[in-house]
Formats: sequence, C-alpha cells, structure tokens
Amino acid sequence: MKKYCYGICFLISVAINILFSIHLYVGDGPNQEISCRSSLTWSEKAAAEAEAVAATSCSSHGRAFLDGSISDGQPVCECYGCYSGTDCSELSPGCAADANSGDPIYLEPFWMQNAADTAVVISGWHRMSYEYADDPMMSPELDKYIRKLHSVAGNAITQDRYIVFGVGSSQLLSAAVYALSSQNSSSPSNVLASTPFYHLYKDQTRLFNSKNFVYRGDTNSWQTNNTDVIEFVTSPTNPGGELKKKSVTGGKTIHDHAYFWPQFTPIPGPSDHDLMIFSLSKLTGHAGTRFGWAIIKDKDVYDKVLNYIYLANAGISKDTQLRALKVLKVAMKADGKPFFEFAYNQMSDRWNRLTSVFSKSTRFSIQRRHPLHCNFFHQTRQPSPAYAWVRCERQEDNDCAAVLKAGKIIGQSGSTFSAKDRYARLSLIKSQDDFELLMQRLTELVSLENHNIEIM
Amino acid sequence: MKKYCYGICFLISVAINILFSIHLYVGDGPNQEISCRSSLTWSEKAAAEAEAVAATSCSSHGRAFLDGSISDGQPVCECYGCYSGTDCSELSPGCAADANSGDPIYLEPFWMQNAADTAVVISGWHRMSYEYADDPMMSPELDKYIRKLHSVAGNAITQDRYIVFGVGSSQLLSAAVYALSSQNSSSPSNVLASTPFYHLYKDQTRLFNSKNFVYRGDTNSWQTNNTDVIEFVTSPTNPGGELKKKSVTGGKTIHDHAYFWPQFTPIPGPSDHDLMIFSLSKLTGHAGTRFGWAIIKDKDVYDKVLNYIYLANAGISKDTQLRALKVLKVAMKADGKPFFEFAYNQMSDRWNRLTSVFSKSTRFSIQRRHPLHCNFFHQTRQPSPAYAWVRCERQEDNDCAAVLKAGKIIGQSGSTFSAKDRYARLSLIKSQDDFELLMQRLTELVSLENHNIEIM
Repeated sequence: MKKYCYGICFLISVAINILFSIHLYVGDGPNQEISCRSSLTWSEKAAAEAEAVAATSCSSHGRAFLDGSISDGQPVCECYGCYSGTDCSELSPGCAADANSGDPIYLEPFWMQNAADTAVVISGWHRMSYEYADDPMMSPELDKYIRKLHSVAGNAITQDRYIVFGVGSSQLLSAAVYALSSQNSSSPSNVLASTPFYHLYKDQTRLFNSKNFVYRGDTNSWQTNNTDVIEFVTSPTNPGGELKKKSVTGGKTIHDHAYFWPQFTPIPGPSDHDLMIFSLSKLTGHAGTRFGWAIIKDKDVYDKVLNYIYLANAGISKDTQLRALKVLKVAMKADGKPFFEFAYNQMSDRWNRLTSVFSKSTRFSIQRRHPLHCNFFHQTRQPSPAYAWVRCERQEDNDCAAVLKAGKIIGQSGSTFSAKDRYARLSLIKSQDDFELLMQRLTELVSLENHNIEIM
Repeated sequence: MKKYCYGICFLISVAINILFSIHLYVGDGPNQEISCRSSLTWSEKAAAEAEAVAATSCSSHGRAFLDGSISDGQPVCECYGCYSGTDCSELSPGCAADANSGDPIYLEPFWMQNAADTAVVISGWHRMSYEYADDPMMSPELDKYIRKLHSVAGNAITQDRYIVFGVGSSQLLSAAVYALSSQNSSSPSNVLASTPFYHLYKDQTRLFNSKNFVYRGDTNSWQTNNTDVIEFVTSPTNPGGELKKKSVTGGKTIHDHAYFWPQFTPIPGPSDHDLMIFSLSKLTGHAGTRFGWAIIKDKDVYDKVLNYIYLANAGISKDTQLRALKVLKVAMKADGKPFFEFAYNQMSDRWNRLTSVFSKSTRFSIQRRHPLHCNFFHQTRQPSPAYAWVRCERQEDNDCAAVLKAGKIIGQSGSTFSAKDRYARLSLIKSQDDFELLMQRLTELVSLENHNIEIM
C-alpha cells in the first residue's frame, strides 16, 4: 500500500512539475500578457509614437517631430541650418552662419534633459470648451504659476495686479496700444519707442492703421511733456540688452520685459510698472508655443486688453496654456535654480567666447556691458544679452550687415531696428550648431582683418 | 531499492515543485520587474498622470483636467452647469437650462470613444522654433490633411488655392477684412453682413477702428452695385442654418463656412469662393484649441492675410497645430464616415426631439428647414443646424429671450445678431446634460402654454 502511495504521489508530483514548467516557460496566454503590460491604456499608443519619433537619429544636427513628414514609414529628420542628409550628418562646407532670427533654441538641451517632467499628454477631449470652469479664457492654475514664477525670479510685482494672456507677447503689444490709446479719433495717441527698437512696435501700429493711435517714431523727437503718448520701453533693450527707463515725461508706457530674466540680465529688483509684457518664448525657449502675458495695474486698462483678446480670437489655445503650465512648473523647481543656472551658463559661455573674438578686432565692436547686482543669483554679474549689437568701425563699412554677409554671417541690419546700418544684430540664442558656426565665421572674419586682407 | 527510489524521487520532485512555486509567486526580484515594465521611458510619467486625471470620477456630469485644480492631492471635478458636489452628482433642482453659448461639447463622447487614436504626447522640446522646416508659420502636414479633409467632405475646392491658419476662425475674420480693404484711408471700405448675423463681424470692425474699413450694417441698405463693399456671407447662417449667397452685387466677399459641414447641413457641392473661412471648433468640437483656416484664391490677398497673422502674433501655436493634425486624422478615417455619421446623428436626434416639442406650441416657433441632397451622405436630408432660432409669436412677447428666461431657459436675444428681440437663439451643440435640461425646460414651457397658464 505504502509502495503504491509512493508511486502515485511521485507521478502526481511529476505531473505538477510539468504543469509548472509549462506555465513558466510557455506562459498562460493572454493572462500573462496582461500581467506584463504597463498599466497604461488609452495613452500608451501616443506615448510609444512620440518616443519612436524622438528616437529617430538625426546626428544631433536636426530633429524629427510628431507632425513632420514621413518617408518609407519613417519620420524625416528636419536638419538645422547648414546640415543635410537623411540623418543630418552632412555639413555643407561653405555654408553661412545664420544669426538672423531670435529663435531661442539654446534651451532645447535643458528640456531634453528633463524629458520625463516636461512631456505632456493631451487627451482627445481635453478642454473642448471655449471656457475654463472659473474663467472665460485663462487657466487659473497657469495664472497662479506665473505669479509664483515672478516671485521666484524676483523680476516683477504681481500682487494686486491683473494678468492677461496673449498669443505670444506680440499680440499683447497691440492689445496694450489699443487699451492705452485715445478713444477720440480726432486726436489719435502718439506711439513712440527709443531707437534702436524691435520693429514690431512700428509694423503692428501701421498694420492696424487705427484712428485711435498713430506711430510717430523715436522718443527723441518728443522730449516735451505729452500725455497723449504711448511709449514702448524695452528693458532689456532688443538689441543691446540694456535696462531702460521711459524717455518721455508724462504719457503712458508699455514695458516690454521679454528679456527681463536672469539668463540675460542681472535682476536689480522687481519691476512694478503700469503695464508689463512677458513672453514664454525668451524665458523658456518655447517660441513655437506662442504664449505671453501682461501684468496690469489699472482695472480699466485690464478690461480693455481682455476685451481685445476676446474679440480678436476668443482667447489662447487651451493646449498652449497646458503646455506653458507644464514647462513653467519644471522651470520653477528648486526655486528656479537649475533652470536659470542652465540658461545663464549657456548665455554666459557664449558671451565669453564672443567677447574673446571681438577683442581681437578693431574693425568690429560690440555693445559694452555693465555689471550689476542680480537679486536672483545674489551676485554682481555681467549681462549676457540675447543679441550682439555689432558696429562696423571703418568709415567705408556703412552697411554692416552686408560686410558680415560677405564674411558668411547673416545678421539683421541696423535699419530693421530704426538705427543706422553701420550696426547689425547677431542672434546668440539659436542652437549650439548655429552658435558654433557663428564663432567659426567670426573668427575667420577677424583673422582676415588681422592679416590685412580685405573681404569687401 | 525500488521503494527507496520512489521515496527519494518523490522528495526531489516535491522540492522542485516548491522551487517552481517560489519562482512563480514571489518572482525573481528586479529582473522580473524589468521584464514586466512597458517599453516607454520619458513619456510614461506624463501618460500615467493624464490617465489618472481622466479616471477621476465626476459622475459623467463634469470632467477633471490636467490643468485643473488639485485638492488633497486629487484632481478637482469641474461640473457641467446645474451640477455640483465633489463628484458632480448633485443636480440643482430649479436650475436654468443654459443654451447661450456655441460651446460644441456635443462631440466630446466621440473623442472619448476614440481615446487611443486622439491622444497626443508633446515632448518638452517639441517645435521650440518659430518656424517649421519648410514654412515660417504653418505645418505642411496639417495643410495637407486640411486639403484631404475638404476633398473627403466634398465641401470646398482647395486645389490651386492658398491656405492660411489663424487663431480660430475669429482671427481670420479680421485678417480677411484687412486684406480685402481699401488701402486708401480717405475712402474706407464698407463692411456689411445680412441680418441676423454673428456679432463678431461688427464688434471686430469697431474694435480695430481702422482708417481702411468701416462697419456699415445690414446688406439690405446697400442694394446697389458697390465695389467698395466687403460682405460677410455666413453659410450656413448663424443663427438659422440656411445656405446663403452674397446679397450685394459687385464688391468682395468673405464666406464664413464655420458650419458648412455634413453634421449641420446637406452639402450640395464644394464651395469655391474667393475667400472661405473654416474652423476646427464647429467641425470637431475643439473650440478650446483655437484653430481656423482660410482658403484663398488670390495671391495678393493671401499675402496680406499671411502678413496680418505674422505681424499680429507670429503664427499659430505649434502645439495647437499638432493637436489639430491628430484630431483631423481621426475624423478622416474611413473617408470621414464614422466621424460625420456620429456628429450628424447627434444633431439629427436633437432636432427630432426639438421639433417634437415645438410642434405642440403656438406661442413659439423655430426656423423652417429645407431638405437638400447631401453629396457627402448621398442622400436627401434635412439640415440640423447648430442653433434653434426661436420666434415668440404672441404680440406682447417682443423680448423672446426674456420670455424664455422666465421659463428658466437662457438663450441669446435677437438683437445680439442685429435682429429683432422677438427672436432668440438657443444652442443645440452643448453637452448632453445641457441639451436634456433644455428639453425639460422647453417641455415645461410648452405644457404651461397648453394649460393656458401665462409665465409672464
């Protein structure tokens, strides 16, 4: 009997072994698959798609994007200037360095390093309405974070102030002119700015060709008290990078603070003007996201700016606001230290290299920078502006952009900023590739000068 | 010996069983964890976050959103009108039905049903530039899909036409007026529309108060040939839902085709006007995404519209364009059949219920609808407009919105559309909750009428 038991028990045990083996090495079909899948459901496909596109190899001289072209089922690399080929590995030998636009790609590496915290998943039904629960156009959470951000950066007072969002700071520039302008068509307000200034002030005012305001040019021609003036005060200036005060006594002001962040300028203290405009573009580098905001003291002006944005386009895309919220949250981590330090180091390194090249030149000079105490970094620091404002010193070089162009450097001519063409603006906030090529071309240009070889 | 063998073999077999059991139910530590994780890396956190928010229970009378408030670490439900409570389960008993806005939430269920295909993951470094590789402002892929969409829906000719994107169709309305207007300030162009019309035509023209154009009111007052006219032709009309032709001979036209889609109107054939404006909002219900486009024949007009968008806000958010691309791709699956059928069925069901209520009333009437052959559905169908245009028939009911309001129904008064206040507009494209409540209140109102009880 005992013998039979051993025999039967052994056979049962072996059978159990076999069953376990099958379970372990073959699996139990669908159930096992489920237990080994991620817990994600509807978002997994989009996530996998985004990661596949991001993993496309573009030799770090380009990017593939989710909404880019597809060739043979593969995302196509969009190469940075001067690079080409399917993986952007081919550098065009004689290619000009393009330092024209203010495309702030210099911060792309920061967002790549913080990929997990800055990705955002938008569901198909995310905020289909025109309105938020507590606001017709603006995300209350985003408003809250913008206020926190200014408190962290120490660059603007937001307490007891109104905030309005716009499609980039660009839209807010014209909304602000509208809101501050005379409602009396027979005596339109005079719109002014100090040369050199951002061309959009003039271009927008002329585009709208309103009965309520008219573009009048440089502040120098209006040095009298004039209350019917709307003055654009760009601080730091574009180009130049200097902190600025209003020029005209009396009148109203629009403070364009697009560059008033610790990576570009020491922050001497919080700005507290009547109407201040900021932009995500130059702060975090998300120019393509088209998001800006205005901080406004006066309720009546606020209502007018709000009405302008509402009638012009019923507010800002909810997707844009969600993304702005996400990147601002990351920028503010650890009181903004990692983000602003990364951004400042990028700019500061570029300025060190730039000044080293220009120090060898007598033909070209760049703006002087004046150190100031920065309340954010708790140090006295040099400004590191977004642009170099180059002056061609030789008498005959009265078209500086043309001189640079002959040296294979593309900049913007002084007249774009209503200044003399003896000046040209070079952008320092583009991608590292663009900056490296700019350094190379500038070095070549300056070395030609030192070998007494004229290029023009 | 055989007995010993049985005994030892049995013990070994049991030991193997125990080992297998431990392996199966305890696992082999970190290795097993890795093998059971999803292959996602940087996008997983955002995906999990989005799914957690989407899983928040709001009793299907509200939604929680990624950018909504957080309370005790949990996303807060944003309840639809008339519902409240932490999970939106409490219906306020005497709450008025809000049929005021054109918020197109009626399509939300479609996007929830297609969650996996319509989610979009945006990386922190997605399109930071102002520009696309092949276009300064507009996604070439999105342009391509918009053209395909019109071909699928059969509602507009896009071949050899230019397309410009705007911040909703709203921005394109003013860009179009600018582009078509006189560049001669001494004789501004006359902007007209046929009553009843969408108030934005008037409001925007007045907001910009341009020297180049002036709002002149109804087309009826301009029945002469006049080449200095810019006429808004809304087709289908808002409110009303009728297909319309231009009223003024000569002059220029802006065809506002926001509602020219198979869910609202039979499509008799592709529209082929000089300047046509469409909007994502009324097509897919993504009003919060602020995306519209204009189809333009003339190169000069196209250049002017493009310049307007460029100077006003340097183009449309790249995030918005990516999301528009994603939802349009899904809307176009299987030649648009599932999407347009879903949308048409929603509208058609609502109209059946609405006409049933109004058929019992002599106090209130709604617009007549005229069946037409629809080239998309290959059938003759009734229009199912986005709005009911209610007329109060009693002599004394000359403020129809007020009459409705007394019956706990919120609509827009006729004068909002430059028509008589004897009319009022009721929105039929809001959420199912809103529509159900509207039906309830209308039924109550009509039943009061049939019991000869005056409510006002």
